[in-house]
Amino acid sequence: MGSASIEPQRLVVSFAPPRDFVTTLKSDLKETFFPDDPFQQFRNEKPSRRLKKALQYFIPIFEWLPKYNFHLFRYDLLAGITITSLAIPQGISYARLASLPPIIGLYSSFVPPLIYAVFGNSKHLAVGTVAACSLFLQSTISDVVSPNDDPALYLRLIFTSTFITGIFQTALGFLRLGILVDFLSHSTITGFMGGTAIIICLQQLKGIFGLLHFTTKTDVISVIHAIFKNRKEWRWESIVVGVTFLCFLQVTTYVRKKKPKLFWVSAIAPMVTVVVGCLFAYFTHADDHGIQIVGHLKKGINPSSIGLLNFDSKYLATVIKAGLVTGLIALAEGIAIGRSFAIMQNEQVDGNKEMIAFGFMNIVGSFTSCYLTTGPFSKTAVNFNSGCKTAMSNIVMAVSMALTLLFLASLFSHTPLVALSAIIMSAMLGLIKYEEAYHLYKVDKFDFIICMAAFFGVAFISMEVGLMISVGFSLIRALLYVARPASCKLGKVPNSTIYRDTEQYPDSADLKGILVLQLGSPIYFANSTYIRERILRWIREEQAVSNFEGSILEHVLLDLTGVTSIDITGIETLIEVRRTLLANDIKMAIINPRIKVMEKMIASKFIDIIGKEYVFLSIDDATEACRFSLQRPKPNGNCSLEDSSTTVV
Amino acid sequence: MGSASIEPQRLVVSFAPPRDFVTTLKSDLKETFFPDDPFQQFRNEKPSRRLKKALQYFIPIFEWLPKYNFHLFRYDLLAGITITSLAIPQGISYARLASLPPIIGLYSSFVPPLIYAVFGNSKHLAVGTVAACSLFLQSTISDVVSPNDDPALYLRLIFTSTFITGIFQTALGFLRLGILVDFLSHSTITGFMGGTAIIICLQQLKGIFGLLHFTTKTDVISVIHAIFKNRKEWRWESIVVGVTFLCFLQVTTYVRKKKPKLFWVSAIAPMVTVVVGCLFAYFTHADDHGIQIVGHLKKGINPSSIGLLNFDSKYLATVIKAGLVTGLIALAEGIAIGRSFAIMQNEQVDGNKEMIAFGFMNIVGSFTSCYLTTGPFSKTAVNFNSGCKTAMSNIVMAVSMALTLLFLASLFSHTPLVALSAIIMSAMLGLIKYEEAYHLYKVDKFDFIICMAAFFGVAFISMEVGLMISVGFSLIRALLYVARPASCKLGKVPNSTIYRDTEQYPDSADLKGILVLQLGSPIYFANSTYIRERILRWIREEQAVSNFEGSILEHVLLDLTGVTSIDITGIETLIEVRRTLLANDIKMAIINPRIKVMEKMIASKFIDIIGKEYVFLSIDDATEACRFSLQRPKPNGNCSLEDSSTTVV
Repeated sequence: MGSASIEPQRLVVSFAPPRDFVTTLKSDLKETFFPDDPFQQFRNEKPSRRLKKALQYFIPIFEWLPKYNFHLFRYDLLAGITITSLAIPQGISYARLASLPPIIGLYSSFVPPLIYAVFGNSKHLAVGTVAACSLFLQSTISDVVSPNDDPALYLRLIFTSTFITGIFQTALGFLRLGILVDFLSHSTITGFMGGTAIIICLQQLKGIFGLLHFTTKTDVISVIHAIFKNRKEWRWESIVVGVTFLCFLQVTTYVRKKKPKLFWVSAIAPMVTVVVGCLFAYFTHADDHGIQIVGHLKKGINPSSIGLLNFDSKYLATVIKAGLVTGLIALAEGIAIGRSFAIMQNEQVDGNKEMIAFGFMNIVGSFTSCYLTTGPFSKTAVNFNSGCKTAMSNIVMAVSMALTLLFLASLFSHTPLVALSAIIMSAMLGLIKYEEAYHLYKVDKFDFIICMAAFFGVAFISMEVGLMISVGFSLIRALLYVARPASCKLGKVPNSTIYRDTEQYPDSADLKGILVLQLGSPIYFANSTYIRERILRWIREEQAVSNFEGSILEHVLLDLTGVTSIDITGIETLIEVRRTLLANDIKMAIINPRIKVMEKMIASKFIDIIGKEYVFLSIDDATEACRFSLQRPKPNGNCSLEDSSTTVV
Repeated sequence: MGSASIEPQRLVVSFAPPRDFVTTLKSDLKETFFPDDPFQQFRNEKPSRRLKKALQYFIPIFEWLPKYNFHLFRYDLLAGITITSLAIPQGISYARLASLPPIIGLYSSFVPPLIYAVFGNSKHLAVGTVAACSLFLQSTISDVVSPNDDPALYLRLIFTSTFITGIFQTALGFLRLGILVDFLSHSTITGFMGGTAIIICLQQLKGIFGLLHFTTKTDVISVIHAIFKNRKEWRWESIVVGVTFLCFLQVTTYVRKKKPKLFWVSAIAPMVTVVVGCLFAYFTHADDHGIQIVGHLKKGINPSSIGLLNFDSKYLATVIKAGLVTGLIALAEGIAIGRSFAIMQNEQVDGNKEMIAFGFMNIVGSFTSCYLTTGPFSKTAVNFNSGCKTAMSNIVMAVSMALTLLFLASLFSHTPLVALSAIIMSAMLGLIKYEEAYHLYKVDKFDFIICMAAFFGVAFISMEVGLMISVGFSLIRALLYVARPASCKLGKVPNSTIYRDTEQYPDSADLKGILVLQLGSPIYFANSTYIRERILRWIREEQAVSNFEGSILEHVLLDLTGVTSIDITGIETLIEVRRTLLANDIKMAIINPRIKVMEKMIASKFIDIIGKEYVFLSIDDATEACRFSLQRPKPNGNCSLEDSSTTVV
């Protein structure tokens, strides 16, 4: 970079002609929909091997089953039995949360896990129903059909909604639209889960207090109001039993937190609660003392429900809404959880393949009397901790559940509702993540606001509105990132040829008569006005300093290293800025446009307008050129903008 | 940068503690809402001068009127009279387009220009009604009230909608939400204007063919169908007169294009058309021969309409919709036009102040029997070409219009409708910009799609749907920019210390065992999954090459120069990537995090996790460190990912 010579050797900028449209389109489509390059492994393979690989790729069971052995099965058997003991109480509880017959919850732990074991991508994910989606289904579908007045129709609409969820998830997977799930940010999910946990806990107070009448609304205020309005129905027996169970469950959770090795204590605690509750209810005839029980559970595995799907236009809009929203929430939860556990073991989970697996699982589920399933956090964590090795643990769970349905169903009919309420409450308390929210608050205030919007929206308005507000904030933020991209002034770091933000590195030196600006992110219609105004402001500020020091600003260098793309409006903005600067005897040069930007600049003749000699590969080259080769402006005195304040200001 | 020494001197990275929350919030809010730093001029001023400056800032007439003189007035007088000659025919025509009494169009050129002259920021903008908004108002309001069945109520709703537009525009200005207008991109506006021009031209065929019955729909197919369905009503007299006028107007436009000095020919052509049309109709009793005329025009200036505003909840939703959409379109047109002409003279127009001026103009307008006004392109261009110097030309127009209303109104009652149709058609033909669309097609295919979506949406579905589709595409594009940010692999440019994209600069050399990646744009929830997958893909590709060459990939350097901000999800992604790499014996270092990114990294303990020694100020520093100071991974053979394909792939 010989800075000593008068005309230093300049690095050559590439003005290669733009790539043709088909090439750039192909590359853009690939980055948008196939960022993980899924077909890379099939290249350079023989057709027969390619078919085998494709089969293994699309149906993962073909990948792991041939390598499966008894050693692995021992782990999966234990994990499978453990998650079954969680699946029975959770299945019954969440079905009640969705105002469904409890048996539907058990059905949902039989067929969907089998499907997932075939198509699923994750080794640790355990399939089951989830509280948030159960409540959402209930609150949406009960708007059009009351589960008390017409339970048969209500059930049919739930199946239909599950079917729609399945179709939607499969379609998203095939269209490789995993990108949609990306817009449910971590902060949104944290807030949404917390808010949902709060309202679900409050819903459970109905069971704990042994109430017969309750509200169908989900927000905090309505629920608390309903509890106090019906205080004549409060039963102390129910309260005592409920609080006892709740304390027991919380203690086991505490034990797991303190001694992670004892995770199985909290894993089997719900089953213990149910069994103890059953025995207690059976021997004390608890239902005569105000403690309600689940009631009759029909023996036998899932009946077909394919004929029950109901696409009546009267309900279709509601059913589709419920299906799409719960489908998206279920995907976000399932994929996020699958990924989190995979990362712990340095594995990858392909979101698009997961969507297809979830989709198949729900389509088949809706044909076999199951409602919405996904990968719930609690079950998956227990599965992982129990040492599962492959999706075989889901098969074990499915088989255990089938045996339960065939032979043990009636045993669970004495389960007291209050025990189920205690199980749900205990699970929900773990979903309110204070520390996470505090961490968000410390690191990023806007993320915190997004999280709180979801939390309070869900708790005080409705689940739907809370989610929408939070996603809305996330989108506004995403748009603000592009509408107000950061720019900064660069100075030369002493003893180097590099240039850095003068705010961040106050030691870096200003260059006499030269202003170096770094722009970030794409330049295009949504931010071009801002960028123009911001550049002109930088120049005004710089001129104020220059004037004070008696020097004159002669050159403005725009470092485009961080500009990933530009559109027509953006190019026009740069042309306008240049025109304004020229009118004030300031020369503008651009530095290091990236390949896509350079292509647009060539195609739009921008390079011809500003001249190739004003495009540099590095800032150092440009500053050298400013000192030596680029002609100075005519020295006609008042070329400062301060004198004629209307021109730039 | 002594690369010869074994342990080269390293540039110091700034790990300054994060700025406090209030400082960053203030700076963020300023960049979002006050990017032009409007209060900069008030600093360091005495209170009395500050008040004066503030008054001049908020009410621009105080700025220019004291300096006004007769010399300037001569220019403004000429320009004002010229635009009045355009305002009369346009006012009548566009009022008819909005299904309003023609006199309302004349009223709208009296009060609003006066208000704009006081508060307006642009020197060249001429106030008036516009075709697109007139048609939009008509098509929206006529959905709830037919202008033929209940013209009084229809008129009241139009005034109400204008009032809402005014309130909306004022609010946007005070809230400094000029950012909203930025999302109506140039491509959207080009397409929308073109589509609107097509449907307005077709609407005028009613006048040209002299039809009595017509459709209320605006799409191309309905209109053409209506014309042919009513072909028995076609009047040859009307067609001959219309085509004659249209040819005359097109010839004058052609003259202006060829000889820009003769712009006044096309400026007064509409007035000539109207006058000739009046005389022709008067002397030939044209209305007896199937050529309809405007009919009685009431003498006198604007009556008050403040009592006519109607906020009946039955119509409110429609009225608000009409008000907001036309308000936004009017702003986009008015501000864009004001800015374009200001740029020609190196002046700035403050979008937020313009919004307030437009808002006041429409609020007062709605109280004085005017409907929606803004700065139409045709009038403003004529004003500029006629040599206007200040907003005084608007005052001249207002006074001329008042005189016309008081003394000449009845003269215009003989204007044949067919003449007005010819005037509108001729104006609209100029708005279909083939070359612009072709330019978009050449430079940016996505911009072209956005433009075409607006064009065909407006022409074949409805104005609203066309606009929405186009804005939707623009937003998707804005979101894709953040969801799929470009990344590239850097190589060292020969004979330098700089690193550039190896695709763009194929000469730049790979570094043995080191992969340098440049990330662009913010890293956050919407793109973190993509970024992780993309980084891992770069590594896989690099490893394939390394393996072939027999070397081992040991270091991955992430250049964050282009990363303007990061959120929690983004930081977690980087941690995950690092964990995956470490498991494969690859070390990860980051280069030059910008100030906001560094603050987040410190606050979230990311820097503590990766270690300060893995953060570098320049790529060259980092590569030196990779060679010398950073410890090599343990040489235990198979650290390539290829051997254990599940780990990263």
